Amino acid sequence: MLTLESIQAAKRKLAPYIYETPVIRLQGLDEVLGCNVYIKAENMQKTNSFKLRGALNKMLAMPIDQLQKGVVAASSGNHGKGVAYAAKLLNIHATIVLPDTAPIVKVEGIRALGAHVIQCKLAERHIVTERLSSEHGYSIIHPYDDFDIMAGQGTAGLEILAQLPEVDKIVVPIGGGGLISGIATAIKSLAPNVKVIGAEPAVISRYAKSLQANERLLLEEQQSLADALLTLQPGERNFPIVQKLVDEVVSVDEISLHNGMQTLLLDGKILAEPSSAIVIGAALQGILPTSKKENVCFLISGGNVGLNQLINL
Amino acid sequence: MLTLESIQAAKRKLAPYIYETPVIRLQGLDEVLGCNVYIKAENMQKTNSFKLRGALNKMLAMPIDQLQKGVVAASSGNHGKGVAYAAKLLNIHATIVLPDTAPIVKVEGIRALGAHVIQCKLAERHIVTERLSSEHGYSIIHPYDDFDIMAGQGTAGLEILAQLPEVDKIVVPIGGGGLISGIATAIKSLAPNVKVIGAEPAVISRYAKSLQANERLLLEEQQSLADALLTLQPGERNFPIVQKLVDEVVSVDEISLHNGMQTLLLDGKILAEPSSAIVIGAALQGILPTSKKENVCFLISGGNVGLNQLINL
Repeated sequence: MLTLESIQAAKRKLAPYIYETPVIRLQGLDEVLGCNVYIKAENMQKTNSFKLRGALNKMLAMPIDQLQKGVVAASSGNHGKGVAYAAKLLNIHATIVLPDTAPIVKVEGIRALGAHVIQCKLAERHIVTERLSSEHGYSIIHPYDDFDIMAGQGTAGLEILAQLPEVDKIVVPIGGGGLISGIATAIKSLAPNVKVIGAEPAVISRYAKSLQANERLLLEEQQSLADALLTLQPGERNFPIVQKLVDEVVSVDEISLHNGMQTLLLDGKILAEPSSAIVIGAALQGILPTSKKENVCFLISGGNVGLNQLINL
Repeated sequence: MLTLESIQAAKRKLAPYIYETPVIRLQGLDEVLGCNVYIKAENMQKTNSFKLRGALNKMLAMPIDQLQKGVVAASSGNHGKGVAYAAKLLNIHATIVLPDTAPIVKVEGIRALGAHVIQCKLAERHIVTERLSSEHGYSIIHPYDDFDIMAGQGTAGLEILAQLPEVDKIVVPIGGGGLISGIATAIKSLAPNVKVIGAEPAVISRYAKSLQANERLLLEEQQSLADALLTLQPGERNFPIVQKLVDEVVSVDEISLHNGMQTLLLDGKILAEPSSAIVIGAALQGILPTSKKENVCFLISGGNVGLNQLINL
């Protein structure tokens, strides 16, 4: 179960190890985004993404003898870096399974933390992970479909409420649904009037389509700039939470995704990865229900992006 | 005269027109910079630099009939953008004299505000400005050697003290000396124990050398990545203020300047221009007197930098 109490417990457990990342007022973007703009800067988190919160909360909850056999995780990069960091902290072995297409900066960041990296086709990463688990006795650290993971991610929601009590709306990137499940649970428990909105790539709108169909649809693989949001199906444990608590999920086209990153960097002066700038892209695309006086907090989930990815901005 | 009262008056006058830019905690840089890292994000100011503070304070203090004849300013870019913005606000004509070598992003930013741009050799910009002034009756808005300009820039210092009362040290880029004169006057009046340190390019260390010689030396023209800090001589009104109030001026080499910008962008996730990242470069070079528990506020003076300038990072 995911509860407010489990998220509050995660906050206490994680406190010595993670940063309370800043909420930053970006007045220069108010006009172009049509609201009072704030960001929750998880691109400034240790490992440069929110994923450390969930990975570490999960691993701190596991029995030590199980941990010592090692862990394995399928990831587009950020979850893998979180698991690698947590494994280094706990002095255990970690293997991270990445798609061939993962940005170099993510692959190198994980290797630098001492984890073993295996790359395979995007569609095969969960199969490879399962095989490694059964062959070597590694525990699988799932990127989103896990209550301890969601509780860890939800701690970012508790921080937003404490740092910006006057928040009206929170916009969150959505892939498998781990982050938004945690945040929506925290927010709706403590401040039910605050709206929680998910933003996913239009080319892989697994949540918008599944919510409409009222079941977890499995979409076909697609390419998107949002390399961290390529998940093809809502998580089993995440879907009902999103159904119940998230106010709306919007679909962001690739041009707006690109424009979001450009606007955030060149006008906002904040470097985020494309999968995070998607929330800014949603506002630029005009699909967010916002109004001029609203305090909107855009969750900038990660900043693992290489200079090579900026050249085409 | 530059006094605390003149800076406080500037703060009241400027309040409706400028942003109170955020002070941001960048914990991820603590280890590499050797202190508790905060930035004052003037790269997020309107016009993307602190220069608007001084230019607008100056122009708001001028008689309306004088303003209506137009203004002219020599600038490396940021002061010109500040003057152009203020002129647009006041609905008057502005001509900005820029060196041939000014970054394209600065030239275009000024033109976009409706100002007339003239480019000439770096060494000739003040002569060209004088000529335009006498030919057309334009008032010269000096970039630093002016008490109203300094009072405007000093408002950033008042904000830092209010936003971060526990600050121990403030590190400020130094060119002609307008910004640091204003900040040091504000800080030393209200919190004399807070240290104020200037950072200038080692290739044009006009302040370090002049302070040692006890007179305003005129240096030879040099190239530096810090395109906004190419001034060859301390300002006449600025030098005695810096002599009296600034604790130390450090000289940052070109490699550290480059490293400062790279570290701030890739690790700190903040986009600043090279002349602003010089303060981070100073810490990386190991020439700042800092210690682990100190709260150091790095003044990030501007963010007018094009993508074309990032490619070689």
